[in-house]
Amino acid sequence: MSDLLIKNCSVLQLNNDGTGAEILTDRDILIRGNLIEAVQATALADESHFRTCIDAKGMLAMPGLINTHAHVPMVLFRGLAEDVPLERWLNDCIWPIERYLSEEDVYWAMLLGAIEMIEAGVTAVADHYFYMDSAASAVEKVGIRANLGWAMFDWMGESIIERTSAFVRQWQGAALGRIRTMMAPHAPYTCNDDFLRATVKAAEKLGVGIHIHVSETKEQTSASLVSRGLTPIQILEQTGVLGVPTILAHACGATPDDIKILARYPTGIASATKTYLKLGMDLTPVSEFRQAGIPVGLATDGAASNNTLDLWESLRLLAMAEKLRWGNPEVLPVAEAISIATVESARVFSRVEKLGKLASGYLADLILIDLGKVHLQPDRNILANLVYSVRPEDVQTTIVDGQIVMRSRQILTVDKAEVIARVRSILKRLTLRQKES
Amino acid sequence: MSDLLIKNCSVLQLNNDGTGAEILTDRDILIRGNLIEAVQATALADESHFRTCIDAKGMLAMPGLINTHAHVPMVLFRGLAEDVPLERWLNDCIWPIERYLSEEDVYWAMLLGAIEMIEAGVTAVADHYFYMDSAASAVEKVGIRANLGWAMFDWMGESIIERTSAFVRQWQGAALGRIRTMMAPHAPYTCNDDFLRATVKAAEKLGVGIHIHVSETKEQTSASLVSRGLTPIQILEQTGVLGVPTILAHACGATPDDIKILARYPTGIASATKTYLKLGMDLTPVSEFRQAGIPVGLATDGAASNNTLDLWESLRLLAMAEKLRWGNPEVLPVAEAISIATVESARVFSRVEKLGKLASGYLADLILIDLGKVHLQPDRNILANLVYSVRPEDVQTTIVDGQIVMRSRQILTVDKAEVIARVRSILKRLTLRQKES
Repeated sequence: MSDLLIKNCSVLQLNNDGTGAEILTDRDILIRGNLIEAVQATALADESHFRTCIDAKGMLAMPGLINTHAHVPMVLFRGLAEDVPLERWLNDCIWPIERYLSEEDVYWAMLLGAIEMIEAGVTAVADHYFYMDSAASAVEKVGIRANLGWAMFDWMGESIIERTSAFVRQWQGAALGRIRTMMAPHAPYTCNDDFLRATVKAAEKLGVGIHIHVSETKEQTSASLVSRGLTPIQILEQTGVLGVPTILAHACGATPDDIKILARYPTGIASATKTYLKLGMDLTPVSEFRQAGIPVGLATDGAASNNTLDLWESLRLLAMAEKLRWGNPEVLPVAEAISIATVESARVFSRVEKLGKLASGYLADLILIDLGKVHLQPDRNILANLVYSVRPEDVQTTIVDGQIVMRSRQILTVDKAEVIARVRSILKRLTLRQKES
Repeated sequence: MSDLLIKNCSVLQLNNDGTGAEILTDRDILIRGNLIEAVQATALADESHFRTCIDAKGMLAMPGLINTHAHVPMVLFRGLAEDVPLERWLNDCIWPIERYLSEEDVYWAMLLGAIEMIEAGVTAVADHYFYMDSAASAVEKVGIRANLGWAMFDWMGESIIERTSAFVRQWQGAALGRIRTMMAPHAPYTCNDDFLRATVKAAEKLGVGIHIHVSETKEQTSASLVSRGLTPIQILEQTGVLGVPTILAHACGATPDDIKILARYPTGIASATKTYLKLGMDLTPVSEFRQAGIPVGLATDGAASNNTLDLWESLRLLAMAEKLRWGNPEVLPVAEAISIATVESARVFSRVEKLGKLASGYLADLILIDLGKVHLQPDRNILANLVYSVRPEDVQTTIVDGQIVMRSRQILTVDKAEVIARVRSILKRLTLRQKES
C-alpha cells in the first residue's frame, strides 16, 4: 500500500537540459514514504491502494520552492528598519535589538517564518542564524525541509566553531533526513582569515559545506581590495572556504575575475533581489554567473529587509531586475526563470539529485497551485503565470518529504494562532528591553 | 437610518500635509448612501440605526486603491507576449490579435479585470481602451468606479473623435456618478497634431479631460526631437492638450524641461513600474515629478504587460525602483509611498476632493485589510506592511460608492464562474481566428 495519491492534476515537467519546462495535463502523482514513486497518466492508479488521496483537478503540481538564503527568525524584526542603508540597517537597527533574543524567541520566530513559507509554497530553506538548536526544533515540528547554519563572527572567539560543530553533529540528518546543516561564518569582513581556515577544517572534518555572505556590494569589494589587495571572493579561495560545497549569499559585488574563480569550485549563489532594491545595494550579476556555469538560486534573505518570505516575489523581481540591468526584455526569459526557481535553486541548496523536479525517485516536496484564480485567467501561458502572476495564496497544498503540511490553505502541523500570539508577546518584551537599555 | 456601519477597525489616517499617515485604532466608520458620514471612536454609534453592520475587529480600513492607468480588457492577452521589446510587443503580438476583438469580448474581459481589481482592493480605475460602451456596461454591473476613455489613433480618421464624444455624452456621470469619462487619444506618435487639436476642442466642449500615453521611453523622446524638434510633451503643450485636465501615462522619457512645462498645467502622471521592468523600458522620474509638484499615481497598465492588475505590487515596485534608480534606500520612504497610493493617486485620477482619504464627506470607497495574516506579523509597522508586505488576498472587503462589492473575499455583484468561463471561450475563438488569418 502506498501513502499518497494526487490525482487529476497538471504537472510542471522540467526539461532535462535545463532550458525550461512544459505543462503535462491529466496526471496522477504516486507517493510512497518520502519519495515520488511515479508521475503517470490519470486513472492508471487504483485509489484503494493509497492511504490518502487528493483530488487535484484544476491544480498544477510543481516542485516546492526552495529558499536558498534566509534568516527566518528575523520575521520578528519585520518593519523595524525601513528606508535606511545597509550599514545603518545593521548597526543602528538590527544588531542593537538582536542581542536581546533568547533561544525560545528563535523557536517561535522560526515557526512563524516557516508557516509563512509553507503558506507560500516554500518547502525547503537554507537558514543562517543564531540559536539554531531552537530553529532545528521548530523545523522538526513544522515539517519544512531545512539546511541550517549557526551564524558565527570572529569576535565570538574560536570556541564558537566548536559550539556550532556540536550543532552540526547533533542535527545533521535529523527529522528523518529533512534537516541538514552547514557551517555558517557570517562573511569575510566579519570573520578573519584564521577564523575562516579553522571553520573550513571543522567543515571538512564534519563532512558539511559552508553557507556564508560574500561581496554584498561593490563597495565591499573595493574596500577589501584597498585594505587587503584581495576581493572577498579571493579571500574565500585563499582560506580554503571554496574547497568545500558552499552557498554564497548575494555576491552582488563579484568581479569578472571572481566569477572565473568561482566557476572552478562546487558553489552556488543565493540571490535576494528585494533586499538589494530596498537597501539600495547592487544587484547580483545573475546572467554572468549563469554563463559561467555557476547556479543562481532564489532567496528572500530575512523579513527585516525583504519584508516577507514570498519566494514568488523573489522570482519575478530577479527576472525583472535582470531585464532592467541589461536594458533588455529578452534577458532571462520565462523558461529560464522557471529553471532558476526549480532545478537551479535545488543545485544551490546542494540537493539537485533529489529536489527541484517531480520525477520518480525524487523527494516528495511539492505544491498544488489553483489554476482557477481570476488573476491567472485566461490560462494561455501557465509558465508566464508562474513567473509573473502567481501569489502565495494560489498555493492550496504543500507537501514536504511526503507529508501534507498544508491542505486547502490550512496548516496541519502546528497551531498557527498560538504561534502568532507568542511572537506578538516576544515583540513586546524585546521592545521593552531595548527601551530600558 | 444610515446605511452601513463598519465597527471596531483600525483606520489609515492620511496627514493633511501629504507627509504620510498614521494608524488610528478602535474606530467606527459610518456610511450614508455613497458618502462617509463620520469616522469616530468605536461604540459611539447605535448599531440598530444601520441597515448593515460589519464587525471589522482586527482589520485596517483604508481608502480603496486607485489604478490611474490601465487597459483592463487586455486581461484577455495575459501571457500572450513575454520577453519581447515594446515595439515587437505591440506590432507582432498585441495588435494582430486585438483586431479580432468584439464589443462583447470587451464586456466580459472588463468584468474579469474588474473582479481581479476588486479582489485586490482596487476601487477605481482610469481605463483606456476600445469598445468602451461595453466597458462602461461592465463597470455599471460590477460596481467599481471608473474614468473611461475610448482609445483613438489618427489612422481611424477624425470621425472617431465624434464617435468617442458620443460615448462621453452618453456615459459621463452614469452609474449614479461612478462613471466619468475622458477623451483618449493614444499618444503623440500615433495621433498627429491636427488630430490632437480636434480632440482638445471636443474635450473642451464636453467639459472633460484627456487621458493619453506620452514619452513612454527616452528613445521616443529622442526620436521626436530628431523628427520634429519637439519632445512629445512639447507637442502636447503646442496642440493644447495640456490646457485641459490630463492623465499622462508613463512619461518615462520626460526631460527636465518637460517637467518644468508640465508643472504649469493641471496634470498627473500614471506610473506602471512592472511594465517598464518587463519591457526593458526606462523608469518614470518619479522624484523629479514630485519635486516639481506634479502628482504621480499608481498604475498597472494592462495585464498583457504587467501580468496582473495587482496595485500593491505596483506600489512596492514603484518605491523600490526609485530607490534603485537613485542608488539610495532613503529615497521614497514608506510615508511617501502611502501618500502616492492614496491622495496622490486620487489627484491623478482627478477626484482628490472626494477620494483618497477616509473622512467625512468623502466618497465611501474603502477596503478592509486583515491585519492578522502570518506575513504581517508581528504588526510593529503597519505602514511598512502596506507598502512591502500586503497582498491582494489580505483585502477582505471592498466597498465602492457605499456598496459592498466584495465581502469576506466573495464577489457580490457578478457571477465570477460565469465570467471566467466566458473569457476562456473568447480566448479560444480569438486564437482560432488568428490562426485562420
